[in-house]
Parts: sequence; C-alpha cells; structure tokens
Amino acid sequence: MSKRKLKMGMIGGGPGSFIGAIHRIAANMDGQIELVAGAFSSDPAKSKQAGEELFLAADRVYNSYDEMFEKEKALPEGERIDFVSIVTPNHVHFDPAMKALDHGFHLVLDKPMTLTLDEAKQLHAKVKESGKLFCLTHTYTGYPMVKEAKQLIAKGELGRIRQVYVEYPQGWLAEMLESENNKQASWRTDPSKSGKAGAMGDIGTHAFNLAEYITGLKITKLCADINIQVEGRKLDDDGNVLLKFDNGASGVLIATQTATGAENNINIKVYGEKGGLEWQQEDANSLVIRNHNKPDHILRAGTPYLHDYAQANTRTPAGHPEGYLEAFANLYRNFARTLHAQMNGQQAEEAWKDFPGAEDGLRGMAFVHHVIESGKSDQKWTDFTV
Amino acid sequence: MSKRKLKMGMIGGGPGSFIGAIHRIAANMDGQIELVAGAFSSDPAKSKQAGEELFLAADRVYNSYDEMFEKEKALPEGERIDFVSIVTPNHVHFDPAMKALDHGFHLVLDKPMTLTLDEAKQLHAKVKESGKLFCLTHTYTGYPMVKEAKQLIAKGELGRIRQVYVEYPQGWLAEMLESENNKQASWRTDPSKSGKAGAMGDIGTHAFNLAEYITGLKITKLCADINIQVEGRKLDDDGNVLLKFDNGASGVLIATQTATGAENNINIKVYGEKGGLEWQQEDANSLVIRNHNKPDHILRAGTPYLHDYAQANTRTPAGHPEGYLEAFANLYRNFARTLHAQMNGQQAEEAWKDFPGAEDGLRGMAFVHHVIESGKSDQKWTDFTV
Amino acid sequence: MSKRKLKMGMIGGGPGSFIGAIHRIAANMDGQIELVAGAFSSDPAKSKQAGEELFLAADRVYNSYDEMFEKEKALPEGERIDFVSIVTPNHVHFDPAMKALDHGFHLVLDKPMTLTLDEAKQLHAKVKESGKLFCLTHTYTGYPMVKEAKQLIAKGELGRIRQVYVEYPQGWLAEMLESENNKQASWRTDPSKSGKAGAMGDIGTHAFNLAEYITGLKITKLCADINIQVEGRKLDDDGNVLLKFDNGASGVLIATQTATGAENNINIKVYGEKGGLEWQQEDANSLVIRNHNKPDHILRAGTPYLHDYAQANTRTPAGHPEGYLEAFANLYRNFARTLHAQMNGQQAEEAWKDFPGAEDGLRGMAFVHHVIESGKSDQKWTDFTV
Amino acid sequence: MSKRKLKMGMIGGGPGSFIGAIHRIAANMDGQIELVAGAFSSDPAKSKQAGEELFLAADRVYNSYDEMFEKEKALPEGERIDFVSIVTPNHVHFDPAMKALDHGFHLVLDKPMTLTLDEAKQLHAKVKESGKLFCLTHTYTGYPMVKEAKQLIAKGELGRIRQVYVEYPQGWLAEMLESENNKQASWRTDPSKSGKAGAMGDIGTHAFNLAEYITGLKITKLCADINIQVEGRKLDDDGNVLLKFDNGASGVLIATQTATGAENNINIKVYGEKGGLEWQQEDANSLVIRNHNKPDHILRAGTPYLHDYAQANTRTPAGHPEGYLEAFANLYRNFARTLHAQMNGQQAEEAWKDFPGAEDGLRGMAFVHHVIESGKSDQKWTDFTV
Repeated sequence: MSKRKLKMGMIGGGPGSFIGAIHRIAANMDGQIELVAGAFSSDPAKSKQAGEELFLAADRVYNSYDEMFEKEKALPEGERIDFVSIVTPNHVHFDPAMKALDHGFHLVLDKPMTLTLDEAKQLHAKVKESGKLFCLTHTYTGYPMVKEAKQLIAKGELGRIRQVYVEYPQGWLAEMLESENNKQASWRTDPSKSGKAGAMGDIGTHAFNLAEYITGLKITKLCADINIQVEGRKLDDDGNVLLKFDNGASGVLIATQTATGAENNINIKVYGEKGGLEWQQEDANSLVIRNHNKPDHILRAGTPYLHDYAQANTRTPAGHPEGYLEAFANLYRNFARTLHAQMNGQQAEEAWKDFPGAEDGLRGMAFVHHVIESGKSDQKWTDFTV
Repeated sequence: MSKRKLKMGMIGGGPGSFIGAIHRIAANMDGQIELVAGAFSSDPAKSKQAGEELFLAADRVYNSYDEMFEKEKALPEGERIDFVSIVTPNHVHFDPAMKALDHGFHLVLDKPMTLTLDEAKQLHAKVKESGKLFCLTHTYTGYPMVKEAKQLIAKGELGRIRQVYVEYPQGWLAEMLESENNKQASWRTDPSKSGKAGAMGDIGTHAFNLAEYITGLKITKLCADINIQVEGRKLDDDGNVLLKFDNGASGVLIATQTATGAENNINIKVYGEKGGLEWQQEDANSLVIRNHNKPDHILRAGTPYLHDYAQANTRTPAGHPEGYLEAFANLYRNFARTLHAQMNGQQAEEAWKDFPGAEDGLRGMAFVHHVIESGKSDQKWTDFTV
Repeated sequence: MSKRKLKMGMIGGGPGSFIGAIHRIAANMDGQIELVAGAFSSDPAKSKQAGEELFLAADRVYNSYDEMFEKEKALPEGERIDFVSIVTPNHVHFDPAMKALDHGFHLVLDKPMTLTLDEAKQLHAKVKESGKLFCLTHTYTGYPMVKEAKQLIAKGELGRIRQVYVEYPQGWLAEMLESENNKQASWRTDPSKSGKAGAMGDIGTHAFNLAEYITGLKITKLCADINIQVEGRKLDDDGNVLLKFDNGASGVLIATQTATGAENNINIKVYGEKGGLEWQQEDANSLVIRNHNKPDHILRAGTPYLHDYAQANTRTPAGHPEGYLEAFANLYRNFARTLHAQMNGQQAEEAWKDFPGAEDGLRGMAFVHHVIESGKSDQKWTDFTV
Repeated sequence: MSKRKLKMGMIGGGPGSFIGAIHRIAANMDGQIELVAGAFSSDPAKSKQAGEELFLAADRVYNSYDEMFEKEKALPEGERIDFVSIVTPNHVHFDPAMKALDHGFHLVLDKPMTLTLDEAKQLHAKVKESGKLFCLTHTYTGYPMVKEAKQLIAKGELGRIRQVYVEYPQGWLAEMLESENNKQASWRTDPSKSGKAGAMGDIGTHAFNLAEYITGLKITKLCADINIQVEGRKLDDDGNVLLKFDNGASGVLIATQTATGAENNINIKVYGEKGGLEWQQEDANSLVIRNHNKPDHILRAGTPYLHDYAQANTRTPAGHPEGYLEAFANLYRNFARTLHAQMNGQQAEEAWKDFPGAEDGLRGMAFVHHVIESGKSDQKWTDFTV
C-alpha cells in the first residue's frame, strides 16, 4: 500500500444528480480514496455550490473539465488527482474520457461507455494505447454473489450452460415524466443526450453485461422486439430480446422502464447440464443453486465457504446485508487496490482486477447498436459483431 | 341440485399414469362426482386391475372405450355415466372424444386438445354442434388468485395492458429420460404420440392459455426460438417466444423442460398503465399487485375482499393453503355445478361456467402449430391465426 | 386391500360448520372412504338438510348420534358404517366418542380431544381397552415436510436438540366477533363449549402437538403468560409460553388469535448441535435446513430424496403444491390404509400408522390444563404431568 | 453547514477488530466525517500499524486514549478532533467515555453502554451534565423501515399495541469457539470483559432496544429463561424472555447465539388493535403491514410515500437495496448533521436527532441486569426498574 489515499477528481455529479452522489459514497466507503477536485457542472455556479457542500478546497473546484485537467496536471504528483471519475449523461462521456487519458489520468466512467458505437471504438483503442487503468461502472458485477455465480460457472459446476434468462424491470418511466421537467427522465429519453437507445442503453446494457459476466459466454446473435409504451416518447422504454451465445446456449433479455410498479429488481437465471443458479438484486446476498433431484442450496454472502472473488468483495459476516452501494463501492475499491498495487510496483490480486473495463464498454455499445437495429428488422436473427 | 352425484366414466389413467390419478382426486374432492366406470388401459388386464383398485363394479370396467360407450349408453339414465373423462396421451384424445360426444356424453378432456390442429378444428366443431358440456383441463386457470387476476384486469384496475411475461420452467427432462424407459418421458418426446411439439405442447400450451385467460387478450403474432437441448431428443424441450397481443401489448413466453433443477413454477407478470400483477404457482395463494408510487398489495386466497370468481373457487379461509389439486378440482367442481344446473333446468352462476372449453383447446393447438412453424422460420413475426 | 371403500358416519358438520366440510373433503379425496350416514346436527331438520346436500340416502340421515349408533349397529357388516367421524364443538366430543367405541366403531375425532382433562383420561383408557383404531385430527402432522422434519431429527441429523420455537399466529378474533353472532367465534369463546382455554385449546394444542411430534421430545415444564386482549372476552385469546423438554432443550410457544391481520401461518424452528430446521405452513412444501458454515438446503415435497414418511404422504411430483386439505386427507388416508390392512389381516406400513392418537389427545388436554394453571401462577415453572 | 468535515478520533478498532472496521465505513460513507486520530489498541505497535493502514498522520496515532485526549485537547479548535468513537470491548467503555466527556469531546459509543449497570448510571449522569452529544450505536434503529415502523405506530396507525415479538437468532457460538482462540468469541464469553451477560448483553440489548424504539413503549416487567447451551461456557448463550409493556401489551424476546446455522436475522412483529407490522433484517428494505380483512401492504425503502424519518435515512431510490452498513452510517450521519447544526448555531431537524442516546444505554444495561436476575429467580415476574 502507498502511504496515502488515492486522489479523485469528479466530472459531473452536481446538484440534482442521482448517480454522482452514488459514486461519491462508493468512493468514500472504504477509506482508500479522497475526493479532492471536481468540475461538477457545466454551470460554474453549480459546480462551486457542489464543491462547497462537499468540503472541497475552493481552488480545486473548476468551471470545466478542461480547466481541471490542465490545472491538476500542473500540480506535483501526490498532490494532483490520480484519477478522474466521469458521472455525466451519456453525451458527455467521450470527450472528457479521451482528454483524461490524454492528460495521463486513470479513469472511472459511468455506463454506457459513450453516445455511439464509433466513439466506443475510439475510446477502447485509446484506453489500450494509454495503459491507464479504466473502470466502467457496471454496478451489478460488484455484488459478491454475482461474482460467486461467475466463479461457480467458470469451474464447471453447472456443466455446459444451456439457458440464460436476464431481466431488468423498472417502472419509473410508466408515465411521461420527461414532460414534467424531471431531470433524470429528460436526458435519458432525449436521443441527443442518451444515444440511439433509451431503456436498452440505460438498463439493457446492465442486463447484457451481467449475462456475459456471469456466464463467461459471448452473445453471437439476437432478435429484438423494441417498444415505445408511453405515447410521445422519443426512445424505447421497453424491449424483449432472444439471445444466442457462443457455446450454443439460448437466452432471453428483458429490459423495461414502463413495468408500472416495478422498482429495480435486476435478476438472472442460468441453467446448465448439471444444475442451475438464480440471483436477484432484491435478495442480493443469496445465490440459489438448483440441483437435479437434490435439494436446492442457498449460498450466502459473508460465509466462509465461498470462492475468493466473493470473499474479497464483502465487508461483513453473513447476515449483515450489504447492498447496492457496497456493490458499487466494490468497483471503486478494486480499482483503487489495483491502482495502489500498480503505483507500488506490486502484483494486484486476481480478485481485485475483476472490474469491468473497456472491452465491456465496447461490447455494451455494440449491444445498443445491434439491439436497436434488430428491433427495426423483419429478419429474425441479427449477428452480434463488434 | 339434482338428488344424486354425477356419474363419471374414465378413459385412460391405468397403472403408472400420473395424470389419471390427479383427475380422480380432483373429481372426488368435493363429493359431487362418483367414478362408476372406466376403460383405463388399452390392455384389458391392466384396465381390470385399475378397476379393482378403484373399487369399481367389475361389470363396469371395460376392455375398450368403444365397449364403454356402447354398454353405458344402453343403461338407464341415472345409472349410466353422465360424462366421460379422457386422460390418455395426446394421440388418444381425438377418437374417444368424438365418439363420446356422438354417444351423447358430456366431456372432460386433458390438454392439449388433440394431436393436430386439424383434429382440434373438427372436435371444436363437434362440441358446438353437440351442445354437450366440454371442459379442457388447463389446471392453472383453476387457481383462485389466477381468477382474481383475470377479474381485476377485466375491471380495468391495471389500465390498458402493456406487457405480459409468462414462464413455465421445468427441469425433469434435463437428461435423456426417454432412453431409460420412463413412461412419462417416452410418449411426451415421441412425435407419434405427442404431436409436432414436445415442451411447447406439454407446458407451452398451459403458459399460452394462462396468458390469454388472465389478460382477456388474444395473441396476434409470435416469434419463436425453439430448441432441443438434450442431444438425440426428437421434439423441442425448450423455447422462448416473443408475443404481440390484440391490444398492442408485448410479451414473452418461456417454456422449458431442461432447466436443470427447476420444478414446475409456472408464473406470470402483467403490467398495465395503472399497475401490475404477479402470480407464481409456488406461492399460489398470493397475488402481488404493483402500484405506481404506492405500496404493493398482497391479495390472499380465502379472504373476504376478493371478487366472486375467487370466492367461488376456494374451500378454506385465508391461511389454509390450497394447491394444485384444489385448482384441478375447481375445474371438475365448476363443470359439475354447471352440469347439475343444466340437468335441473337452472341457470349456472357465471363463476361456475368459468372453465376452459373447446375454444381454448382450439387456440392451444393453433399455438402449437404456429410456435413450431415460427421456430423454423427466418422471418421475425408469424401471424397467429386459427 | 379389501374389495370396498370404508364406510363413514359423521357426527356434526351440519349447515354453517367449517370443520365438517374440511373433514368430508379430506375423507373424499383419495377414494378410500365413502360417507354413508350422519347425524349432522342436534336439530333434525338441519341434519336432514345436510344429508340431502351430501346425496345421502334419507334413511341413513339420523336425528341424533344415539340413533345412528343403534341403527347402524343393526345393519350387516359391509353395509353398516366402519367408523365414525366426530366434528362437533369440544363439549360434544366425549359422549359420542365413548359411545362410538362402545358400539364397536373405529373413530376419527377432531381436536382437542375433550372438554376436560378428566374426560380425556377416560377416553384415552377406553380407546386402549376397546382396541379400536383412533385418530385425532392434528392436521399439521399430516404435512409431508413436517414428517420429513420428524424423521430427520429422529435419525440424528441435527444432533441433540437445543431450541424449539413454535408459533401459531391468528388474527380473526382481533375484534369481539362473539357479540356479532359469529358461530365459529361464539362457541370457541364460551367456556361451557370450549373448555377452560380459548386460543390455547383451539390452536395452542396444535402448536404443542407439532413441537412434540417433530422433535420426538416431551415437554416437562412450562411457564405461561396467558392474556385476554379483547375486553369482555371470557377466555384467553393470546398467550406466550416458555418450555422445557425432557432432553434439556428450551423453547417458546406462542399462540394468539388477536394478532390483527395474521392469517394462520403456524410455524416451527428447531435447532440442534449440528444444524437447524424451519417449517411454516405458508410455504408448506419446503423445509429449510440450516447448517453450520455450510449453505442452507431447501428440501421440497414430492422429490425423490425424502424419507419414506414424506414419500408416503404426497400425491404429486415436486412443484405441484399440496396444502392444508391434503395434509388433512393424509390423516384420513393413513387411518383408512391402516384400517383396511387391519380388516384384511395385513401389516400396515409404518408410514401409514403415523397419525395422531389417544396419547396425543391426552397430552394435548394436559397442556390445556397446565398452561392455564401456569398462567394464573406466580411461580415461574409448572411441571407438565399427565 | 460548517465549512469542514467533522474530525473523529477512534479508540479501539485495531487489527482483527470486527466492529472497528464497521464504524469506520459508517463514518466514511457520507463524506461528513474524517478520521484524523486514533488509539487503536492497547498495544502501541498495533495502534501504529492500524494508523498506517488508515493513512493517518503518524503524530496523531497514539499509544493510549489518555495520550490522545491530552494531545488532541491541546490542538486548536478546527484542527483537533471534534468527537471520539469508542469501539472497544465492553470493559473498556466506561473509562474512556467518562474521560472523553471530561475533555470536552462529543461521543459515539458502541453498545452495550458499559460493563455494569452502576457504570451506566454514572455515564448517563455525566452525559446529561456535560451537554455533549452522545450516540450509542444500536445499529438496527438506523434502518429506514425501522424508523417508518416507529412513526406509523406513533401516529396510531396500528391502534393500541397488544403484542410485541422480537427475535435475535445467531448461530456462530454453536460451538466452543472461545477455546479455539477466536478473538470475537473470547471476550464476549468472558465475564470480566463482557459483563454479567453473554448473548443477552451482546444481542439481547439490540432486541430490547428495537422493541422499545419501534413501539415507543417501555418494558415494565419480564420473565426470563436464561441458558448456557454449550457446555463449559461461562456466560449465557441463549435465552427466552416474556415481556410486559407499560400500556399492558405482552411480548416475547428471544436472543440466542447457539441456533446452529442461523446468521443474524434480527426481526420484530408488532400487532395492535387496528393492524400489525413485521420487519426482518434479511429483507431490510421492506416493511410488511398486516390489515384486518384487507390486503397486506408492503412498504419499501426509497419510495415517496414514506414518512420523514425514513426519507431522511435513505440514499437511493426504491429497488437499490441499502443494508447494515447504511443503517450504521445513518447513526453517524445523523450524529454529524446534528453536531454540525449545533456547531453552526442552527436547529437540527427532528429526523436527524433520532439516534440512540444515553437513556437508551442506561435502559439497555438495566435490561442486562434484570434479565440475568430473572433467569435465576423462581418467581415469574421481575420488575423492570432503572
């Protein structure tokens, strides 16, 4: 361990931001990271207000990310920020991300990676070229029981995978919130800020990422039914997708933001030749294992019998429920542990390096592209290429 | 009420039959029906054995259904059977069903209706023409909370329906049971006995029926991915289907018999503009109602606040769980109550007449036909016609 | 098997009876028993009405149980009733039960056994002396997963038992229903009809019986807090009891009928040195097994891995939920199977003979006696003697 | 808000401490507090090691709490610590707590308050006299749905409370861990470090506090069965307690650390004349409301329909589960918000001031005293006095 906390600068996350506050809690939680600088809003007054509320030194609250990159870069190592966290809407991902890397900062970026697939390809290339550490915040991969599921499958405990069902049901866009001046709704349903997809970009990408993460498989083709359920909306708010995976497995992905009354219970079921598993965010600390003609097993977070990834991603013993914020914090903690190791010339543990990166981001944007194209097509299957 | 129990003759359900025993329990439960005759097997010795175990008079245990029809018809009314219950594999549905009606008997028939869509059309016409009472045993429509769901939606409490998700996951065919001399597996995976579909005919039809029953909507097109997961099997054992309904709603139907470790938890979620509902067989006495920005409500069987259909289809107060056999018995009890009323020249209550009939059977066979055709097609959507 | 169904005569269960209808469904379900006679009410007109609705021959519907015993006894064996089922309120248990045995009939009796402990002792002695088969309908012991729990503990899989928690929460008496002419409430809260206990007799005895049945242990002392929560009520409607068992285990029994909004979710948790188990009626087909530093296991009814008692007490494969009526029917089916075996000079299987008998009834009445006495005592522990 | 974070000094929480790490996460999470000093262990080398791992300045890692108090007090306001957090075993609560107050520091203290009731009385008096802010970390009162339960009852939505059932089942002491050199087990089972109670002090006090917190009632008498389930242990590891409350309500408290396989699912059920509520930590974001002859309602954390306390104690919208660490962080955040307000001469909101204080600590120690005395008594009821 280095002798100091890692220093973070934030882009976005000003007054009224949902995800900015989440990122800060996640970064704070484990005492590995301190927020020291920020360009919290494109409106300098709002950026200043945020900086004050966050107890930042006034001279490190910037009017723009360009200013932040320049001034921070000029500070001595150890004082300047080590990495940047970008928590803006989708249309303000690409430019600051490219510039952060250009200025030599490591990078945490909210999903989806960019506004377009083309931007994603460029950013993916830039990350590889830069050698900087990059984390894309696909929160759900941070849950310990999701990691346990991944490791169980990787070790062959379910046998060859046959079926993958992943659902992400939300209901908060069941009404036309974007016409009621709701900030969260407005940018997410605006093609210029959200990209070519609405629900499929916002939450479909999480479901897609979760399915590939847990199974270790890659989707090779898909067939999508993409809908606008609320009249007048400009982007999809609902969709159902048939999936094929590279080992021949079949699957279904459901992502909707208009399932009235649904909260956020992303869930996945995977079945293989030898058994199945089921995980849902509402019961995040349990992993149900289905066995053929034998009792189900319920694996629980915080227990001694789990594999190393799950062990490395809990803070409390069994029965002290950790949740969404801890899953998010696991991304930051693993990013920080890996970066600390790198800075100290040490080897990071495998479990620490297990956070989503540029490859995940690129595949996510390919998903957005193909799923929307398939939705418009009369042909059943659309090939999934990157 | 007439002064006597209704008299039932059974076709099929001999030694080793699963569903025959279920039908008998369902018919027995409420003391409205007595089993007095049967042709329980195509093997006369087995039919005789079954008759003895069931305490039947020896002269009313027949060697064939043809013999049963003839001899029972010759008995005086009040002594002869009032109706026939057919519980054979699919390929022995059409012939005895047509003959039962020709001989003037009312009819209970296990699902799916017939081996082919063409047979279903003929039987459907024959039922209409005969004026006899006909019940197709789509068990899951017999659950009180399924009926409550139907009535809530019919009364508009969810508003216009937008999404329908129905799943029927089983795992018992995860291995090649048909090569192990398993009677249940063997006929279900044999096209000459099961028809053109395996899982889609056996359980997909239940899921299809449940979706149309609860929502009151009709499917207008579908897009199917139909799979054989176990190598060497002759019929589908897994499939995922995108759905469109006649009001524009979208949906997904999943039916699989190879989800290793899954039991039989058929479940459905329906969301409308104003709210959603969720039902699953494993928690059959609850109906979850999702509300927008208001608490979920959990409706429970046996309570005084339910609508009339649910009230008419429970036997116990809340907290005394009824299950699969009671749901099945509700079909028989409603059939019996309606038949009793008809025989006594009375009006049956609406709630009693709410059991699946020939129209459901015909649509189920159309589902089997279209879903298999769609599975072979490169075109995304296949129209659902009857 | 004998060549005929067993013939049952019923005492009580006329119009408005809850439990009478339940007993008939339970007796009907498996086709082993036919109801052929009855004295359904102390009001002959009501008895007649019940007989008609149940399709009985008019000459076997009696004005009193005395008449039934006399006339049925006079019928030839094979035509007359084989056994009597008594489903009246508690104060009409003792007299007909004693007379049934005196007239040579086998006996099914609703719980609790009698009005007083003294009556219970006499009836217990009479059962032993008569050699007749006797079943007391403690329903919850009929559940397959309750039987599995019993066998697991008997085989030592939990090690020495340390803690037993049993709860029976109901809320239907949360208001003063007995002043609203509610038949079920009225007799249960009337000391002359219910005995010295209200809730403790009606449902506390079930909880007591379940705890002793599952653990195989006997309660040796108890300490009770007995309450009347609804002002003006004459008998206890709520109580909490500390327990000690004959192996040194501790426990708690909670039985209340004034837990507003509670339905009927009787549940039990047992922990031993090596593991624990939990069962609740609302999820009756599951048995949760707790393990030390190993995953929980969920055992499910209808699976092939259960012990013989559970296997013998299900009718359907896993995932087809059976409930309260099937648990009740298991008592009747096991009684009938054992009686059939006895009549045919055969050995009944152990699993068939596993239904509650006179010993359970006597201990239940001792529980009623001691728990009420303890409730009045200032001394902590009251010895449990019979 | 003041222009800076609050500065915290920690006592205890060195290498191997469970609860120290929890306190730090809770203090970090919301960015209101920074850990700047500590006396992490009575072993100076261990204290130093902890300080380094926590990135503290070397000159603010102390060899003893006495040293910390003295040196910190000498620092200028704004630089020195604002408050102390004590996370040591019970026998090291009283002395540092008294001294912290004497030195003018505000105080967060882990539960139970002290080793003895007498110490608790002194500390309680000292807190009152000092006027310093004091928080006792009864974690479970920090859950938003626990706060919602409290407010619902306070507003009379359940009517007069009749029954209170609170359970705290753990299984981690099912074996003799203290003889295996387990640090957590060793001090908790040692009377010189834990006090006169084992399980009743460690977790019984949480259950006691939760019951009084939610209901707003006070316990007036109790009847305890206190057990040592593991042979050779020196303190209770299991117990069951009958309760009476000051409004006449009855209750049961169960606390055990030897329920093999149980994790940490503290739970409470409260029933009143008009309805009931149920909360369990394993499903911490739900609050079940039971209604008489109406559907159950499921209230959910993060929704707009909750009362102000719950609203003020969540960070995420519904469906993003918060857990144990957020509940703990709510104590620190509310303490910090209140302290900030006080330092700035502002009024703290009611919801912020809702954290456990010296009165709760004193009553908790009275509970420990009376419950152990009752366990030894032959008399049924023991008065609960303070």
